Amino acid sequence: MLGLFQGASRLRAALRLLSYTAPFPPTDLQRLCPIQTSARFMSLSRRLHHVGEDGSRSSPASAPDRLPFSRVSVEDLAFFSQILPGRAITDPDLVESSNVDWLKSVRGSSELLLRPQTTEEVSQILRYCSSHNLAVNPQGGNTGLVGGSVPVYDEIILSTSLMNNIHSFDHISGILTCQAGCVLENLSLFLEERDYIMPLDLGAKGSCQIGGNVATNAGGLRLLRYGSLHGTVLGLEVVLADGRVLDCLSTLRKDNTGYDLKQLFIGSEGTLGVITAVSILCPRKPKSVNVLFLGCETFEQLLKAFQLCRGMLGEILSAFEFLDSECMKLLNTHLKLSNPISDCSFYIVIETSGSDPSHDAQKLHNFLEEAMKSLLVTDGTVATEESKIKALWSMRERVTEALTHDGFNYKYDISLPVERIYQLVTDMRQHLGSRAKRVVGYGHVGDGNLHLNVTSPVKDPVLLAAIEPFVYEWAARYHGSISAEHGLGLKKRNYIYYSKPRPAVALMGNIKAMLDPKGILNPYKTLPDQLKQH
Amino acid sequence: MLGLFQGASRLRAALRLLSYTAPFPPTDLQRLCPIQTSARFMSLSRRLHHVGEDGSRSSPASAPDRLPFSRVSVEDLAFFSQILPGRAITDPDLVESSNVDWLKSVRGSSELLLRPQTTEEVSQILRYCSSHNLAVNPQGGNTGLVGGSVPVYDEIILSTSLMNNIHSFDHISGILTCQAGCVLENLSLFLEERDYIMPLDLGAKGSCQIGGNVATNAGGLRLLRYGSLHGTVLGLEVVLADGRVLDCLSTLRKDNTGYDLKQLFIGSEGTLGVITAVSILCPRKPKSVNVLFLGCETFEQLLKAFQLCRGMLGEILSAFEFLDSECMKLLNTHLKLSNPISDCSFYIVIETSGSDPSHDAQKLHNFLEEAMKSLLVTDGTVATEESKIKALWSMRERVTEALTHDGFNYKYDISLPVERIYQLVTDMRQHLGSRAKRVVGYGHVGDGNLHLNVTSPVKDPVLLAAIEPFVYEWAARYHGSISAEHGLGLKKRNYIYYSKPRPAVALMGNIKAMLDPKGILNPYKTLPDQLKQH
Repeated sequence: MLGLFQGASRLRAALRLLSYTAPFPPTDLQRLCPIQTSARFMSLSRRLHHVGEDGSRSSPASAPDRLPFSRVSVEDLAFFSQILPGRAITDPDLVESSNVDWLKSVRGSSELLLRPQTTEEVSQILRYCSSHNLAVNPQGGNTGLVGGSVPVYDEIILSTSLMNNIHSFDHISGILTCQAGCVLENLSLFLEERDYIMPLDLGAKGSCQIGGNVATNAGGLRLLRYGSLHGTVLGLEVVLADGRVLDCLSTLRKDNTGYDLKQLFIGSEGTLGVITAVSILCPRKPKSVNVLFLGCETFEQLLKAFQLCRGMLGEILSAFEFLDSECMKLLNTHLKLSNPISDCSFYIVIETSGSDPSHDAQKLHNFLEEAMKSLLVTDGTVATEESKIKALWSMRERVTEALTHDGFNYKYDISLPVERIYQLVTDMRQHLGSRAKRVVGYGHVGDGNLHLNVTSPVKDPVLLAAIEPFVYEWAARYHGSISAEHGLGLKKRNYIYYSKPRPAVALMGNIKAMLDPKGILNPYKTLPDQLKQH
Repeated sequence: MLGLFQGASRLRAALRLLSYTAPFPPTDLQRLCPIQTSARFMSLSRRLHHVGEDGSRSSPASAPDRLPFSRVSVEDLAFFSQILPGRAITDPDLVESSNVDWLKSVRGSSELLLRPQTTEEVSQILRYCSSHNLAVNPQGGNTGLVGGSVPVYDEIILSTSLMNNIHSFDHISGILTCQAGCVLENLSLFLEERDYIMPLDLGAKGSCQIGGNVATNAGGLRLLRYGSLHGTVLGLEVVLADGRVLDCLSTLRKDNTGYDLKQLFIGSEGTLGVITAVSILCPRKPKSVNVLFLGCETFEQLLKAFQLCRGMLGEILSAFEFLDSECMKLLNTHLKLSNPISDCSFYIVIETSGSDPSHDAQKLHNFLEEAMKSLLVTDGTVATEESKIKALWSMRERVTEALTHDGFNYKYDISLPVERIYQLVTDMRQHLGSRAKRVVGYGHVGDGNLHLNVTSPVKDPVLLAAIEPFVYEWAARYHGSISAEHGLGLKKRNYIYYSKPRPAVALMGNIKAMLDPKGILNPYKTLPDQLKQH
């Protein structure tokens, strides 16, 4: 991290240090700014320990009636114990952590957790469940935010956690093939040793699994640079509801032989099939990574800085994130993270990754100089070392965690034309007035993706009624999406019509009926309770 | 273009000129190297004039029997003439160019060409055709290579050529929304004025339409940098077989509300619906573009140069293409294009695009220096001006055109692990011996995509029997794709099982039956005649 000066003089100092002819002097961030650099790698257990003022079951109104699936019998259990020796878990203490999501906002009552190791075992499980009318909840790292990853009633939990083998990595093409249960961070570490990186990165990387990432079409922090999983996932192996194995595990960059079936499963939240293996195109590890943490006074300035940055940083820009001053207060208060710069209305995290450190530094230098000259940013600091980079990143990544300490969270993940994203926060604040404890906005500017959060001391149905459908109507008015990257899961399924027209949702229903005619896969999720026909 | 020196001395001179502190001196390519720079922008009419030693209908064996669709009646014609005044074409001379593909390798016998201007007109057409059991051939720029874009029998041709309005362009996000019939080159010109570019580029850009590009999941020359259309297409409007309009025309970078239906239509070759509008994410126009044309003695050296290049050019690498010495002979002989460097076994076209000309030049300089030092390349030349860049690019882009002058073409578009791609050419040459006039290989190294072409003085069933299924078996043995980017269309539909397992093809059949139960959309294409069940 380069210096911690005051205001413009700090920026000028950063500029001097960024001179691409000079080496970067090491400085001591920890002394000046006590950010916990390990924060980016939260383990599930730690998160479960930290989160959750509200451990109650989601309100009955939000879950539909239990569908007439069979209940697990002694015979069923005997079958599963036989095909998965020691891996058909019924101990309630062990099943418990798979019944509740990490926000502790929804809780199921499953009594059976299955832990297959192979595709063939998943196939046997689903063939059996299909013929015995047993519902199944596929589960990866259980880090989702919309209640999609835990059972609603007594669905059998099918965990991919033990399916964590890497099949192959082609060091020429950068194509990785692995089982669905590989933890994202483990894949990242595997690749970094081989001079590659994963094309996606999330705050939950320490727990989330690649199969779950694909099933939920996870976005995250690198989407701006490397694009969505619809582009980077090259192949999938999927077990269908009836146990048939669909092998689309291509390791080719291009393949136009028929319909691209794998795309159907990307973002289908485990409702169309269980992803058992993934092949994915991985970018080369950048030789140079820099992170800027900047402050702006208005959102208009922030947008202008974004435009300037896209032009001047061009191909090395890999993230452009923001948080507002309310987020900073949460980080200060609940996580004791200090603001590394002076107080501003908005904070920007810009990351660059490139192949030549001196070129990248010069581009950053030119951008900062121009941003200062145009008075777009009022303060800022720069990091080039890995530990310092992680420290700055944690100011953005740990906002979600800080929020969980502020009371009950009403969470929204809205996609909008980028120039609109903060207007929703302002309008919501005005709309709610003193009814909310706090209304905060942060997210991915580069992707037009706002994370809007409203906090309240306790769960508050009156507050909720003031937020919804206001927030969805607002998003729909500006042709936004009511779920940019979190998915619909259990919590948002009935709001789909705000973002998708009826014929589209009806067609989704047809696809579900075609692939899972008995509806055993992740029931009550993604699709609305009533499928309205055109 | 920087100099035309001999061998290593030419490279050293190029290196000197690439020094990032020195300006680039203008030189006169035309005098030394008579490449026609306008060649990249072939119009359809010119191509139709140039191509086609073989104007015959594809062999009966390759087309299935006509399915029992209705024939166009006087009443049908009256209906279409009423809803499309002056745009329901029956004049045989006018219909003719839509009945034949640009290779003149397949020819239909349609008597009716419809030219709608709006989505509502397309909807009316399909609603009518569906209820009257009339088959429809959706047609864009008709530049496909697998017989997918023309009728097989008397299908009504639905041309999108008059649907060429640009709806909107968001200069902040770079998202373009337009009708399906916009010609790719026109979109490129529109965007370049606004400092953006299209994320795809093809040799056929002067004729091909964005709707057809999406329907065929076109790859092209920028895929290495900007990824496939599955990632860059953000939204589609599609008219389904029964006339229903499916509005998935999102202009958002992220939207996880339900299944991503638009993906189904990308690459479905008009068999599942007619794409009427597209929204697509466009990259910023690079401030600096350079093209290197290099020569190697072996394919192993070429692969090593690719690896070196990926590491040293990193984020500015935008294309890595190759052609072999047989291609160069074709360019010399049939198009009178001179080799801009000395004779080599393989030629590489490398393109870089970046935001800082001096940084890019320095990266290129470093790469070239290392490639020479390691003896990976034996000769080369560099272009930085637009006209010279086009001239070098035409050496790669006009190979397809040159081939059409060499006799009958047997064309294959194979995707393989990159280290295998040229082995297929060598093996095919050995396998065919003197039976073929010429066996040539070129294509997209960066994408592992080989264009293998075998020429013969005339159509030769004995030669064909020697090529197929040899070529498909070879590709399948190495887990390749028998169609990397061209699609299956009419010509390759029955070879799908070489690249896709039976359950996958069966599921494709289910999807077709769900979306087009009467099978009126582009019949005889993409899916095999016999759908084998699992």
